[in-house]
Amino acid sequence: MSPRRFSPEVRDWQSQATKDAVQDHMEAAFFKTIAQKVSVQGSGRTDAGVHALAQIAHADVPADRLDVKAWQGALNNFLPDEIRVMKVTKAAPDFHSRFSAQGKVYTYRIWNSRFLHPLEIGRVWHVPTTLDLDVLRAGAKLLMGKHDFAGFAANRAPGYAAEDTVRTIFQIGLTRRGDLLTLRYEGNGFLYKMVRLLTGTLIRCAQGRAELKFIKDLLAEKGARKTSFAAPAEGLYLTRVIY
Amino acid sequence: MSPRRFSPEVRDWQSQATKDAVQDHMEAAFFKTIAQKVSVQGSGRTDAGVHALAQIAHADVPADRLDVKAWQGALNNFLPDEIRVMKVTKAAPDFHSRFSAQGKVYTYRIWNSRFLHPLEIGRVWHVPTTLDLDVLRAGAKLLMGKHDFAGFAANRAPGYAAEDTVRTIFQIGLTRRGDLLTLRYEGNGFLYKMVRLLTGTLIRCAQGRAELKFIKDLLAEKGARKTSFAAPAEGLYLTRVIY
Repeated sequence: MSPRRFSPEVRDWQSQATKDAVQDHMEAAFFKTIAQKVSVQGSGRTDAGVHALAQIAHADVPADRLDVKAWQGALNNFLPDEIRVMKVTKAAPDFHSRFSAQGKVYTYRIWNSRFLHPLEIGRVWHVPTTLDLDVLRAGAKLLMGKHDFAGFAANRAPGYAAEDTVRTIFQIGLTRRGDLLTLRYEGNGFLYKMVRLLTGTLIRCAQGRAELKFIKDLLAEKGARKTSFAAPAEGLYLTRVIY
Repeated sequence: MSPRRFSPEVRDWQSQATKDAVQDHMEAAFFKTIAQKVSVQGSGRTDAGVHALAQIAHADVPADRLDVKAWQGALNNFLPDEIRVMKVTKAAPDFHSRFSAQGKVYTYRIWNSRFLHPLEIGRVWHVPTTLDLDVLRAGAKLLMGKHDFAGFAANRAPGYAAEDTVRTIFQIGLTRRGDLLTLRYEGNGFLYKMVRLLTGTLIRCAQGRAELKFIKDLLAEKGARKTSFAAPAEGLYLTRVIY
Protein backbone atom coordinates (compact mmCIF):
# COMPACT_ATOMS: atom_id res chain seq x y z
CA MET A 1 0.00 0.00 0.00
CA SER A 2 1.55 3.23 -1.05
CA PRO A 3 1.25 5.94 1.60
CA ARG A 4 -0.98 8.94 1.08
CA ARG A 5 0.40 12.40 0.76
CA PHE A 6 -1.38 14.76 3.08
CA SER A 7 -2.08 18.34 2.10
CA PRO A 8 -5.53 19.45 3.16
CA GLU A 9 -4.24 22.81 4.33
CA VAL A 10 -3.88 24.41 0.95
CA ARG A 11 -7.32 25.78 0.29
CA ASP A 12 -9.15 29.01 1.00
CA TRP A 13 -12.86 28.91 1.61
CA GLN A 14 -13.65 31.74 -0.77
CA SER A 15 -14.07 31.14 -4.50
CA GLN A 16 -10.84 31.66 -6.44
CA ALA A 17 -10.05 32.29 -10.09
CA THR A 18 -8.28 28.91 -10.01
CA LYS A 19 -11.59 27.30 -8.90
CA ASP A 20 -9.70 25.35 -6.24
CA ALA A 21 -11.24 26.99 -3.15
CA VAL A 22 -13.49 24.98 -0.85
CA GLN A 23 -16.49 27.01 -2.04
CA ASP A 24 -15.66 26.14 -5.67
CA HIS A 25 -15.41 22.44 -4.88
CA MET A 26 -18.69 22.57 -2.97
CA GLU A 27 -20.53 24.30 -5.81
CA ALA A 28 -19.09 21.81 -8.31
CA ALA A 29 -20.29 18.91 -6.12
CA PHE A 30 -23.80 20.39 -6.01
CA PHE A 31 -23.77 20.77 -9.77
CA LYS A 32 -22.61 17.19 -10.28
CA THR A 33 -25.35 15.99 -7.94
CA ILE A 34 -28.37 17.77 -9.43
CA ALA A 35 -27.06 19.24 -12.72
CA GLN A 36 -28.11 22.67 -11.54
CA LYS A 37 -26.13 25.71 -10.45
CA VAL A 38 -26.33 26.19 -6.67
CA SER A 39 -24.65 28.98 -4.74
CA VAL A 40 -22.98 27.83 -1.49
CA GLN A 41 -22.42 30.38 1.26
CA GLY A 42 -20.02 29.79 4.16
CA SER A 43 -20.11 31.36 7.63
CA GLY A 44 -17.04 33.34 6.69
CA ARG A 45 -13.88 32.94 4.72
CA THR A 46 -10.93 31.02 6.03
CA ASP A 47 -7.49 31.57 4.53
CA ALA A 48 -5.36 28.93 2.90
CA GLY A 49 -3.64 26.95 5.65
CA VAL A 50 -6.39 27.48 8.22
CA HIS A 51 -8.13 24.27 9.27
CA ALA A 52 -11.86 24.83 8.98
CA LEU A 53 -13.00 21.98 11.23
CA ALA A 54 -16.46 23.39 11.79
CA GLN A 55 -17.29 25.50 8.80
CA ILE A 56 -21.02 25.93 8.32
CA ALA A 57 -22.42 26.58 4.85
CA HIS A 58 -25.90 26.88 3.43
CA ALA A 59 -27.34 26.42 -0.03
CA ASP A 60 -30.82 26.83 -1.52
CA VAL A 61 -31.75 23.65 -3.34
CA PRO A 62 -34.94 22.47 -5.04
CA ALA A 63 -37.02 20.67 -2.40
CA ASP A 64 -38.08 17.84 -4.66
CA ARG A 65 -34.73 16.65 -5.95
CA LEU A 66 -33.02 14.82 -3.11
CA ASP A 67 -33.92 13.66 0.38
CA VAL A 68 -32.07 15.53 3.17
CA LYS A 69 -30.41 12.26 4.21
CA ALA A 70 -29.02 11.63 0.73
CA TRP A 71 -27.15 14.91 0.35
CA GLN A 72 -24.15 14.10 2.55
CA GLY A 73 -23.19 10.98 0.62
CA ALA A 74 -23.84 12.58 -2.74
CA LEU A 75 -21.72 15.66 -2.03
CA ASN A 76 -18.84 13.74 -0.40
CA ASN A 77 -18.82 11.43 -3.39
CA PHE A 78 -17.90 14.38 -5.61
CA LEU A 79 -15.63 16.26 -3.18
CA PRO A 80 -11.86 15.76 -2.86
CA ASP A 81 -10.86 13.74 0.25
CA GLU A 82 -9.56 16.85 1.98
CA ILE A 83 -13.07 18.36 2.04
CA ARG A 84 -15.82 16.50 3.87
CA VAL A 85 -19.43 17.35 4.60
CA MET A 86 -19.82 16.12 8.18
CA LYS A 87 -23.55 16.73 8.54
CA VAL A 88 -26.51 17.97 6.49
CA THR A 89 -29.71 19.37 7.99
CA LYS A 90 -32.68 21.27 6.67
CA ALA A 91 -32.50 24.91 7.79
CA ALA A 92 -35.21 27.51 8.33
CA PRO A 93 -35.95 29.57 5.19
CA ASP A 94 -34.41 32.70 6.72
CA PHE A 95 -31.24 30.94 7.97
CA HIS A 96 -28.01 32.37 6.56
CA SER A 97 -24.72 30.70 7.48
CA ARG A 98 -22.97 34.05 7.77
CA PHE A 99 -25.62 36.57 8.84
CA SER A 100 -27.32 34.27 11.35
CA ALA A 101 -24.04 33.53 13.13
CA GLN A 102 -23.95 34.89 16.72
CA GLY A 103 -20.31 34.14 17.23
CA LYS A 104 -17.35 31.94 16.46
CA VAL A 105 -14.75 29.91 18.25
CA TYR A 106 -11.21 29.68 16.90
CA THR A 107 -8.51 27.50 18.38
CA TYR A 108 -4.84 28.28 17.87
CA ARG A 109 -2.25 25.52 18.53
CA ILE A 110 1.38 26.30 19.39
CA TRP A 111 4.16 23.73 19.76
CA ASN A 112 6.36 25.30 22.43
CA SER A 113 9.48 23.20 22.66
CA ARG A 114 12.85 23.10 20.95
CA PHE A 115 12.02 20.38 18.43
CA LEU A 116 8.77 20.03 16.52
CA HIS A 117 7.11 16.62 16.67
CA PRO A 118 6.96 15.32 13.06
CA LEU A 119 3.24 14.47 13.29
CA GLU A 120 2.54 18.13 14.12
CA ILE A 121 4.09 19.51 10.93
CA GLY A 122 1.51 21.78 9.26
CA ARG A 123 -0.80 21.60 12.29
CA VAL A 124 0.81 23.96 14.79
CA TRP A 125 2.96 27.06 15.00
CA HIS A 126 6.38 25.94 16.22
CA VAL A 127 7.65 28.43 18.82
CA PRO A 128 10.90 27.02 20.26
CA THR A 129 11.64 29.94 22.60
CA THR A 130 10.60 30.26 26.25
CA LEU A 131 7.21 31.85 26.84
CA ASP A 132 6.08 33.71 29.93
CA LEU A 133 2.59 32.31 30.46
CA ASP A 134 1.75 34.97 33.04
CA VAL A 135 2.38 37.65 30.44
CA LEU A 136 0.31 35.64 27.94
CA ARG A 137 -2.60 35.49 30.39
CA ALA A 138 -2.33 39.19 31.20
CA GLY A 139 -2.30 40.05 27.48
CA ALA A 140 -5.32 37.85 26.84
CA LYS A 141 -7.16 39.63 29.64
CA LEU A 142 -6.50 43.01 28.01
CA LEU A 143 -8.01 41.75 24.75
CA MET A 144 -11.20 40.29 26.22
CA GLY A 145 -14.34 42.39 26.03
CA LYS A 146 -15.67 44.90 23.52
CA HIS A 147 -12.98 46.81 21.62
CA ASP A 148 -12.20 48.41 18.30
CA PHE A 149 -9.84 45.76 16.90
CA ALA A 150 -8.80 47.72 13.78
CA GLY A 151 -5.19 47.52 15.02
CA PHE A 152 -5.46 43.72 14.84
CA ALA A 153 -6.88 43.45 11.32
CA ALA A 154 -5.12 43.12 7.99
CA ASN A 155 -6.07 45.65 5.36
CA ARG A 156 -8.43 44.28 2.78
CA ALA A 157 -7.80 44.84 -0.89
CA PRO A 158 -9.03 48.24 -2.16
CA GLY A 159 -12.70 48.08 -3.05
CA TYR A 160 -13.80 46.44 0.19
CA ALA A 161 -16.43 48.49 1.96
CA ALA A 162 -15.23 50.20 5.13
CA GLU A 163 -16.14 47.85 7.92
CA ASP A 164 -17.21 48.32 11.50
CA THR A 165 -14.16 47.07 13.40
CA VAL A 166 -15.70 46.79 16.86
CA ARG A 167 -15.93 43.21 18.10
CA THR A 168 -16.48 41.51 21.44
CA ILE A 169 -14.21 38.70 22.60
CA PHE A 170 -16.18 36.76 25.22
CA GLN A 171 -13.29 34.59 26.30
CA ILE A 172 -9.68 33.70 25.54
CA GLY A 173 -8.86 30.36 27.13
CA LEU A 174 -5.30 29.18 27.59
CA THR A 175 -4.30 25.57 28.17
CA ARG A 176 -0.94 23.86 28.20
CA ARG A 177 -0.47 20.10 27.87
CA GLY A 178 3.16 19.07 27.61
CA ASP A 179 4.66 20.91 24.67
CA LEU A 180 1.31 21.93 23.24
CA LEU A 181 -0.09 25.35 24.08
CA THR A 182 -3.66 26.06 22.98
CA LEU A 183 -5.43 29.40 22.77
CA ARG A 184 -9.22 29.30 22.40
CA TYR A 185 -10.89 32.51 21.20
CA GLU A 186 -14.64 32.89 21.57
CA GLY A 187 -16.17 36.06 20.19
CA ASN A 188 -19.13 37.56 18.36
CA GLY A 189 -17.01 37.83 15.23
CA PHE A 190 -13.44 38.31 14.04
CA LEU A 191 -11.93 40.66 11.48
CA TYR A 192 -9.73 39.59 8.57
CA LYS A 193 -6.66 37.78 9.96
CA MET A 194 -7.58 39.01 13.46
CA VAL A 195 -6.99 35.72 15.34
CA ARG A 196 -3.58 35.29 13.74
CA LEU A 197 -2.64 38.89 14.60
CA LEU A 198 -3.93 38.55 18.18
CA THR A 199 -1.94 35.35 18.64
CA GLY A 200 1.23 36.64 17.02
CA THR A 201 1.16 39.78 19.17
CA LEU A 202 0.43 37.86 22.39
CA ILE A 203 3.30 35.46 21.71
CA ARG A 204 5.60 38.37 20.92
CA CYS A 205 4.81 39.77 24.39
CA ALA A 206 5.20 36.35 26.06
CA GLN A 207 8.65 36.10 24.46
CA GLY A 208 9.60 39.43 26.05
CA ARG A 209 10.04 41.03 22.62
CA ALA A 210 7.12 43.45 23.06
CA GLU A 211 5.47 45.08 26.07
CA LEU A 212 1.86 44.56 27.13
CA LYS A 213 1.56 48.33 26.72
CA PHE A 214 1.77 47.71 22.97
CA ILE A 215 -1.53 45.76 23.13
CA LYS A 216 -3.16 48.50 25.23
CA ASP A 217 -2.01 51.16 22.77
CA LEU A 218 -3.22 49.24 19.72
CA LEU A 219 -6.68 48.94 21.25
CA ALA A 220 -6.74 52.61 22.25
CA GLU A 221 -5.53 53.88 18.88
CA LYS A 222 -8.34 52.09 17.00
CA GLY A 223 -6.37 51.28 13.89
CA ALA A 224 -4.11 54.33 13.66
CA ARG A 225 -1.33 51.82 14.20
CA LYS A 226 -1.49 48.12 13.34
CA THR A 227 0.39 45.13 14.65
CA SER A 228 2.42 43.25 12.08
CA PHE A 229 2.98 40.12 14.18
CA ALA A 230 0.80 37.53 12.49
CA ALA A 231 0.96 33.92 13.63
CA PRO A 232 1.07 31.47 10.71
CA ALA A 233 -2.20 30.08 9.29
CA GLU A 234 -1.28 26.43 9.91
CA GLY A 235 -1.86 26.68 13.69
CA LEU A 236 -5.39 28.11 13.31
CA TYR A 237 -8.61 26.07 13.51
CA LEU A 238 -12.19 27.26 13.12
CA THR A 239 -13.76 25.01 15.76
CA ARG A 240 -17.29 26.31 16.12
CA VAL A 241 -19.84 28.67 14.65
CA ILE A 242 -22.45 29.78 17.18
CA TYR A 243 -26.06 30.37 16.03
CA MET B 1 2.80 32.13 4.93
CA SER B 2 2.68 29.29 2.47
CA PRO B 3 1.36 26.08 4.00
CA ARG B 4 3.59 23.08 4.54
CA ARG B 5 3.07 19.89 2.67
CA PHE B 6 3.02 16.99 5.04
CA SER B 7 4.51 13.65 4.07
CA PRO B 8 6.44 12.07 6.92
CA GLU B 9 4.94 8.67 6.22
CA VAL B 10 6.99 7.82 3.21
CA ARG B 11 10.12 6.34 4.72
CA ASP B 12 11.25 2.90 5.79
CA TRP B 13 13.62 2.58 8.69
CA GLN B 14 16.02 0.25 6.95
CA SER B 15 18.77 1.55 4.68
CA GLN B 16 17.72 1.71 1.03
CA ALA B 17 19.60 1.91 -2.24
CA THR B 18 17.98 5.34 -2.67
CA LYS B 19 19.56 6.42 0.66
CA ASP B 20 16.23 7.91 1.71
CA ALA B 21 15.42 5.55 4.61
CA VAL B 22 15.41 6.86 8.18
CA GLN B 23 18.59 4.88 8.91
CA ASP B 24 20.32 6.54 5.93
CA HIS B 25 19.31 10.02 7.11
CA MET B 26 20.48 9.22 10.64
CA GLU B 27 23.88 7.98 9.47
CA ALA B 28 24.26 11.03 7.22
CA ALA B 29 23.48 13.31 10.20
CA PHE B 30 26.13 11.56 12.30
CA PHE B 31 28.65 11.97 9.50
CA LYS B 32 27.83 15.66 9.12
CA THR B 33 28.21 16.14 12.87
CA ILE B 34 31.58 14.47 13.47
CA ALA B 35 32.92 13.79 9.92
CA GLN B 36 33.19 10.13 10.75
CA LYS B 37 31.24 7.10 9.59
CA VAL B 38 28.91 5.84 12.32
CA SER B 39 26.58 2.86 12.01
CA VAL B 40 23.10 3.45 13.47
CA GLN B 41 21.06 0.42 14.54
CA GLY B 42 17.31 0.61 15.15
CA SER B 43 15.19 -1.65 17.35
CA GLY B 44 13.71 -3.14 14.21
CA ARG B 45 12.62 -2.09 10.79
CA THR B 46 9.40 -0.24 10.16
CA ASP B 47 7.91 -0.19 6.68
CA ALA B 48 7.19 2.88 4.63
CA GLY B 49 3.93 4.37 5.85
CA VAL B 50 4.29 3.13 9.43
CA HIS B 51 4.63 5.92 12.00
CA ALA B 52 7.64 5.12 14.18
CA LEU B 53 6.74 7.35 17.14
CA ALA B 54 9.06 5.58 19.55
CA GLN B 55 11.83 4.07 17.50
CA ILE B 56 14.97 3.44 19.58
CA ALA B 57 18.37 3.40 17.89
CA HIS B 58 21.92 3.12 19.14
CA ALA B 59 25.25 4.17 17.72
CA ASP B 60 28.85 3.80 18.89
CA VAL B 61 30.49 7.21 18.87
CA PRO B 62 33.90 8.44 19.99
CA ALA B 63 33.56 9.49 23.65
CA ASP B 64 35.61 12.64 23.31
CA ARG B 65 33.90 14.33 20.39
CA LEU B 66 30.59 15.64 21.68
CA ASP B 67 28.86 15.98 25.02
CA VAL B 68 25.77 13.74 25.39
CA LYS B 69 23.60 16.86 25.73
CA ALA B 70 24.85 18.30 22.44
CA TRP B 71 23.95 15.33 20.24
CA GLN B 72 20.21 15.92 19.98
CA GLY B 73 20.53 19.43 18.61
CA ALA B 74 23.37 18.50 16.31
CA LEU B 75 21.56 15.53 14.75
CA ASN B 76 18.19 17.30 14.40
CA ASN B 77 19.98 20.17 12.72
CA PHE B 78 21.02 17.82 9.90
CA LEU B 79 17.86 15.69 9.74
CA PRO B 80 14.80 16.42 7.57
CA ASP B 81 11.85 17.82 9.54
CA GLU B 82 9.96 14.53 9.29
CA ILE B 83 12.64 12.76 11.35
CA ARG B 84 13.34 14.00 14.87
CA VAL B 85 15.58 12.72 17.62
CA MET B 86 13.38 13.17 20.72
CA LYS B 87 15.97 12.17 23.33
CA VAL B 88 19.63 11.14 23.58
CA THR B 89 21.11 9.21 26.50
CA LYS B 90 24.36 7.38 27.17
CA ALA B 91 23.75 3.62 27.08
CA ALA B 92 25.61 0.75 28.72
CA PRO B 93 28.43 -0.67 26.54
CA ASP B 94 26.50 -3.90 25.95
CA PHE B 95 23.19 -2.21 25.10
CA HIS B 96 21.83 -3.06 21.66
CA SER B 97 18.64 -1.34 20.46
CA ARG B 98 17.44 -4.54 18.80
CA PHE B 99 18.87 -7.43 20.81
CA SER B 100 18.28 -5.83 24.23
CA ALA B 101 14.59 -5.21 23.47
CA GLN B 102 12.25 -7.26 25.67
CA GLY B 103 9.14 -6.33 23.80
CA LYS B 104 7.30 -3.79 21.72
CA VAL B 105 4.01 -1.97 21.68
CA TYR B 106 2.27 -1.17 18.41
CA THR B 107 -0.89 0.86 18.10
CA TYR B 108 -3.23 0.51 15.15
CA ARG B 109 -5.79 3.27 14.46
CA ILE B 110 -9.00 2.62 12.51
CA TRP B 111 -11.51 5.28 11.45
CA ASN B 112 -14.78 3.37 11.58
CA SER B 113 -17.42 5.62 10.11
CA ARG B 114 -18.79 6.33 6.67
CA PHE B 115 -16.72 9.44 5.97
CA LEU B 116 -13.06 9.92 6.82
CA HIS B 117 -12.21 13.08 8.75
CA PRO B 118 -9.79 15.07 6.53
CA LEU B 119 -7.26 15.56 9.35
CA GLU B 120 -6.98 11.76 9.66
CA ILE B 121 -5.91 11.19 6.05
CA GLY B 122 -2.72 9.09 6.09
CA ARG B 123 -3.03 8.49 9.84
CA VAL B 124 -5.70 5.81 10.06
CA TRP B 125 -7.21 2.91 8.14
CA HIS B 126 -10.62 4.03 6.97
CA VAL B 127 -13.11 1.17 7.47
CA PRO B 128 -16.59 2.52 6.63
CA THR B 129 -18.47 -0.76 7.22
CA THR B 130 -20.11 -1.89 10.46
CA LEU B 131 -17.85 -3.85 12.83
CA ASP B 132 -18.92 -6.38 15.42
CA LEU B 133 -16.80 -5.41 18.41
CA ASP B 134 -17.67 -8.61 20.27
CA VAL B 135 -16.19 -10.63 17.42
CA LEU B 136 -13.16 -8.33 17.41
CA ARG B 137 -12.66 -8.92 21.15
CA ALA B 138 -13.09 -12.68 20.79
CA GLY B 139 -10.58 -12.75 17.93
CA ALA B 140 -8.07 -10.71 19.94
CA LYS B 141 -8.44 -13.18 22.81
CA LEU B 142 -7.57 -16.07 20.49
CA LEU B 143 -4.38 -14.31 19.42
CA MET B 144 -3.13 -13.45 22.89
CA GLY B 145 -0.50 -15.72 24.41
CA LYS B 146 2.37 -17.75 22.99
CA HIS B 147 1.77 -19.01 19.43
CA ASP B 148 3.54 -19.81 16.21
CA PHE B 149 2.52 -16.76 14.19
CA ALA B 150 3.96 -17.95 10.84
CA GLY B 151 0.45 -17.71 9.37
CA PHE B 152 0.47 -13.99 10.21
CA ALA B 153 3.84 -13.12 8.69
CA ALA B 154 4.72 -11.98 5.20
CA ASN B 155 7.38 -13.99 3.44
CA ARG B 156 10.75 -12.32 3.40
CA ALA B 157 12.73 -12.07 0.21
CA PRO B 158 14.73 -15.22 -0.58
CA GLY B 159 18.04 -15.22 1.24
CA TYR B 160 16.60 -14.34 4.65
CA ALA B 161 17.53 -16.92 7.25
CA ALA B 162 14.66 -19.13 8.38
CA GLU B 163 13.30 -17.46 11.48
CA ASP B 164 11.75 -18.75 14.66
CA THR B 165 8.13 -17.66 14.27
CA VAL B 166 6.97 -18.23 17.84
CA ARG B 167 6.03 -15.01 19.62
CA THR B 168 4.08 -14.07 22.73
CA ILE B 169 1.40 -11.39 22.64
CA PHE B 170 0.96 -10.18 26.21
CA GLN B 171 -2.07 -8.06 25.51
CA ILE B 172 -4.32 -6.75 22.75
CA GLY B 173 -6.23 -3.74 24.04
CA LEU B 174 -9.27 -2.40 22.25
CA THR B 175 -10.69 1.07 22.74
CA ARG B 176 -13.33 3.02 20.88
CA ARG B 177 -13.75 6.78 21.11
CA GLY B 178 -16.36 8.14 18.73
CA ASP B 179 -15.38 7.06 15.22
CA LEU B 180 -11.86 6.09 16.23
CA LEU B 181 -11.10 2.48 17.06
CA THR B 182 -7.67 1.71 18.50
CA LEU B 183 -5.96 -1.65 18.83
CA ARG B 184 -2.90 -1.80 21.10
CA TYR B 185 -0.60 -4.79 20.68
CA GLU B 186 1.95 -5.55 23.37
CA GLY B 187 4.26 -8.50 22.75
CA ASN B 188 7.79 -9.81 23.09
CA GLY B 189 8.32 -9.25 19.38
CA PHE B 190 6.50 -9.18 16.07
CA LEU B 191 7.26 -10.84 12.73
CA TYR B 192 7.50 -9.01 9.41
CA LYS B 193 4.13 -7.28 8.71
CA MET B 194 2.60 -9.27 11.59
CA VAL B 195 0.66 -6.42 13.23
CA ARG B 196 -0.85 -5.39 9.89
CA LEU B 197 -1.83 -9.01 9.15
CA LEU B 198 -3.30 -9.52 12.64
CA THR B 199 -5.32 -6.31 12.30
CA GLY B 200 -6.50 -7.00 8.77
CA THR B 201 -7.64 -10.50 9.71
CA LEU B 202 -9.38 -9.35 12.91
CA ILE B 203 -11.26 -6.64 11.00
CA ARG B 204 -12.20 -9.12 8.30
CA CYS B 205 -13.81 -11.26 11.02
CA ALA B 206 -15.48 -8.24 12.67
CA GLN B 207 -17.00 -7.38 9.28
CA GLY B 208 -18.47 -10.88 9.10
CA ARG B 209 -16.41 -11.70 6.02
CA ALA B 210 -14.35 -14.41 7.78
CA GLU B 211 -15.00 -16.74 10.70
CA LEU B 212 -13.07 -16.74 13.96
CA LYS B 213 -12.26 -20.35 13.10
CA PHE B 214 -9.97 -18.95 10.39
CA ILE B 215 -7.79 -17.38 13.11
CA LYS B 216 -7.77 -20.59 15.14
CA ASP B 217 -6.77 -22.60 12.06
CA LEU B 218 -4.00 -20.20 11.08
CA LEU B 219 -2.47 -20.50 14.55
CA ALA B 220 -2.80 -24.30 14.54
CA GLU B 221 -1.36 -24.73 11.05
CA LYS B 222 1.85 -22.84 11.94
CA GLY B 223 2.38 -21.24 8.57
CA ALA B 224 1.10 -24.00 6.24
CA ARG B 225 -1.51 -21.42 5.31
CA LYS B 226 -1.13 -17.66 5.56
CA THR B 227 -3.61 -14.85 5.88
CA SER B 228 -3.58 -12.31 3.07
CA PHE B 229 -5.63 -9.66 4.86
CA ALA B 230 -3.08 -6.95 5.64
CA ALA B 231 -4.25 -3.66 7.09
CA PRO B 232 -2.58 -0.66 5.42
CA ALA B 233 0.66 0.72 6.87
CA GLU B 234 -0.71 4.21 7.45
CA GLY B 235 -2.77 3.16 10.50
CA LEU B 236 0.20 1.56 12.28
CA TYR B 237 2.29 3.24 14.98
CA LEU B 238 5.31 1.88 16.85
CA THR B 239 4.55 3.40 20.24
CA ARG B 240 7.03 1.78 22.62
CA VAL B 241 10.08 -0.44 22.75
CA ILE B 242 10.41 -2.24 26.08
CA TYR B 243 13.90 -2.88 27.54
